[in-house]
Amino acid sequence: MRMYDVIKRKRDGLPLTEEEIRAFVRGYTRGEIPDYQASALCMAIWYRGMTVEETTALTLAIRDSGEVLSFPDFTDLRVDKHSTGGVGDKTSLVIAPIVAALGVRVAKMSGRGLGHTGGTVDKLESFAGLRTDLSTEEFMSVASKAGLALVGQSANLAPADKKLYALRDVTATVDSLPLIASSIMGKKLAANDDCILLDVKCGSGSFMKTEEGSRALARLMVEIGKGAGKRMRALLTNMDRPLGQAIGNSLEVIEAIEVLSGRGPADLRELCLTLASHMLQLVDRGTLDECRKMAERTLLDGSALRVLADMVECQGGDPTWVYDTGKFPRAPYERAVLAPKEGYIAHTNAEEYGLACLTLGAGRSRLEDEIDHSAGIYLYKRTGDYVKEGEPIAMLFTSREASLPAASERLLAATVISSEPPSPQPLVYEVIK
Amino acid sequence: MRMYDVIKRKRDGLPLTEEEIRAFVRGYTRGEIPDYQASALCMAIWYRGMTVEETTALTLAIRDSGEVLSFPDFTDLRVDKHSTGGVGDKTSLVIAPIVAALGVRVAKMSGRGLGHTGGTVDKLESFAGLRTDLSTEEFMSVASKAGLALVGQSANLAPADKKLYALRDVTATVDSLPLIASSIMGKKLAANDDCILLDVKCGSGSFMKTEEGSRALARLMVEIGKGAGKRMRALLTNMDRPLGQAIGNSLEVIEAIEVLSGRGPADLRELCLTLASHMLQLVDRGTLDECRKMAERTLLDGSALRVLADMVECQGGDPTWVYDTGKFPRAPYERAVLAPKEGYIAHTNAEEYGLACLTLGAGRSRLEDEIDHSAGIYLYKRTGDYVKEGEPIAMLFTSREASLPAASERLLAATVISSEPPSPQPLVYEVIK
Repeated sequence: MRMYDVIKRKRDGLPLTEEEIRAFVRGYTRGEIPDYQASALCMAIWYRGMTVEETTALTLAIRDSGEVLSFPDFTDLRVDKHSTGGVGDKTSLVIAPIVAALGVRVAKMSGRGLGHTGGTVDKLESFAGLRTDLSTEEFMSVASKAGLALVGQSANLAPADKKLYALRDVTATVDSLPLIASSIMGKKLAANDDCILLDVKCGSGSFMKTEEGSRALARLMVEIGKGAGKRMRALLTNMDRPLGQAIGNSLEVIEAIEVLSGRGPADLRELCLTLASHMLQLVDRGTLDECRKMAERTLLDGSALRVLADMVECQGGDPTWVYDTGKFPRAPYERAVLAPKEGYIAHTNAEEYGLACLTLGAGRSRLEDEIDHSAGIYLYKRTGDYVKEGEPIAMLFTSREASLPAASERLLAATVISSEPPSPQPLVYEVIK
Repeated sequence: MRMYDVIKRKRDGLPLTEEEIRAFVRGYTRGEIPDYQASALCMAIWYRGMTVEETTALTLAIRDSGEVLSFPDFTDLRVDKHSTGGVGDKTSLVIAPIVAALGVRVAKMSGRGLGHTGGTVDKLESFAGLRTDLSTEEFMSVASKAGLALVGQSANLAPADKKLYALRDVTATVDSLPLIASSIMGKKLAANDDCILLDVKCGSGSFMKTEEGSRALARLMVEIGKGAGKRMRALLTNMDRPLGQAIGNSLEVIEAIEVLSGRGPADLRELCLTLASHMLQLVDRGTLDECRKMAERTLLDGSALRVLADMVECQGGDPTWVYDTGKFPRAPYERAVLAPKEGYIAHTNAEEYGLACLTLGAGRSRLEDEIDHSAGIYLYKRTGDYVKEGEPIAMLFTSREASLPAASERLLAATVISSEPPSPQPLVYEVIK
């Protein structure tokens, strides 16, 4: 295989063979194929797309570029859940404890924040001392002991994806359906759970802005997963507005704990219960209704919260924070954002909310940036709510006082207040099996 | 300017501003913009193309990436000629002496062989000891003394083009109209002659296979040159078959000397006189007819050949070789290629002839390869000629005996013999002013 020919074939709209795709991924991971050829290929893929067969081959090659986990000690069906990323999306922190409380062992690798979206690993690290960089042995041991382990992605897992993603990020080739699908599924298949539930977001706060785009991505990933022998399901869910009221790492952890304690915002609670029900159904725990009831029970009897506390302890954090969220450090600077006029909040641009949160210090602009875990936004008013002029719609939290005016402005610019209430949007658009 | 945004804008089909293009070329030349971003941009340009304004901006940025020659001592109009590359194209070796013999000073930079095509500099180096790597001062001095200097492109001239071309060559982004046009014209504008005659080839032996493609390229380059204040003209000429009978470095020099001596193949002689006439007309030497007559005279009175001999001497070669071509070293191995059947030679694939020549050692597969100046092919029979079975159609010359069978086979496979004579093709398709 000459890489030149592979680029040229794709450039000209011809499909690549499985062998060509494997040789590319192998050569690129090993550094034998230079970045400049890989980026030219990615751009050609951006234009020409890939067939399901090509995308599957790319996904499997990414999976096989590193370690593929195996769980010889876990005989039950294992289930993973992946969100395509959103603003205020702390569902993993709720769902994983729910299903683990019901005896479904969860050994889950999660990502860090990316662009305007947050990441589970960054959120978890709001617990002082909590480690997310466990070795494979530690990871398995925590999952055995607490029933749940949530860690960062191991460097050995799908290294091709790390290299390719970093390249795509700087060459304007991120938003390509086959490249997104293979990137996500390559990692998921390397994590090697039996069942995978995908939460594919759509709307202003997601990477796929349109429903059709999200649907196409969801279908493609379900197909790839099935082709690799996995039980697959995808939910197409609303990310046109932030999920819940909290955006920012420790704020989101606290909100997740609220839901695990039987409280919390209705939209977040509802989505978590829906996702958990589907996960439970995937591992044969009963009908969707039965699974839903089981999930609800774990929130009321405290069992899910207990699993989270156990996991926090096993991973080096202080479990008492789970029961007293006042222990999370509070940001030194706060500012209320006031409604500039009376009316209904007709739309909130979730991506802009996420970016405002980033300015406050809750995320990274560059890889090496430190995160301020206490920074973030708490929303008092959300899409559909009625506000009076001068009423606080949100509270900003930060350690960088200077960032407050810009973040406040950004938030207001992304908030449409209107005399008409918006028409309600569904939380879940579709379930794809 | 963020390079990411430039890539994204072009990817999405938006035109780039002159400032963005300049910043890209400057940053890339200096090594501040990495290859992988440049290749992604080239691929996006491959798909989206560029407007004339963008292509002109790119050309001028390439020109300005290095030294732009100035000729304070030459007060007359200077003329340059550029061929887009072909097989057996030794016209520069004939035309430059013709116009120089008529008092038009020619200080010309030429290229080396590229792919299946030959290059003037490689050909000239068939004269033992002849130097083509003159300093700017030497270059000017030879042009003053002999009236003609033919050298390789200075490293200081359009360095952006060298870097970009090398990148395009390995990322399948060579065949893009705006990238080809800006690459050629960027160098020509840096050489900074007042008039530029373009010989744009079309057909099987050229880089542009179709007449429309060649026409579009010719028009674009003429437009760019005019925009930069140059007198421009382009001839669209036939490269569907090799030009003349000789392919390979010293073989082509000998054939050029034949033409300069008033002999040589009719097609080559005719094209050289046509091109020379247009060059002379560009510098106001009279009507096309008058220029043609002047050019013909230089072949008959020996004045053009004398200029070549003077130039060879000034550049360190032995001028007596011009008068006794038997002094050029002869290849140690020869083989006749025999017609496999009787009939008309209906088509000769010029690119394949060029590649066969490459296998014999006349060109490079890699940049570091040494050229065998005596290697090549001499054609006894060409398109339109009638051959008997077993009659020699060509003679192969090489220092690598082992290459003979493959080259012979390649030549035969590229030669169509038919019972019907082919319809004649014009030598010049169009003159574009």
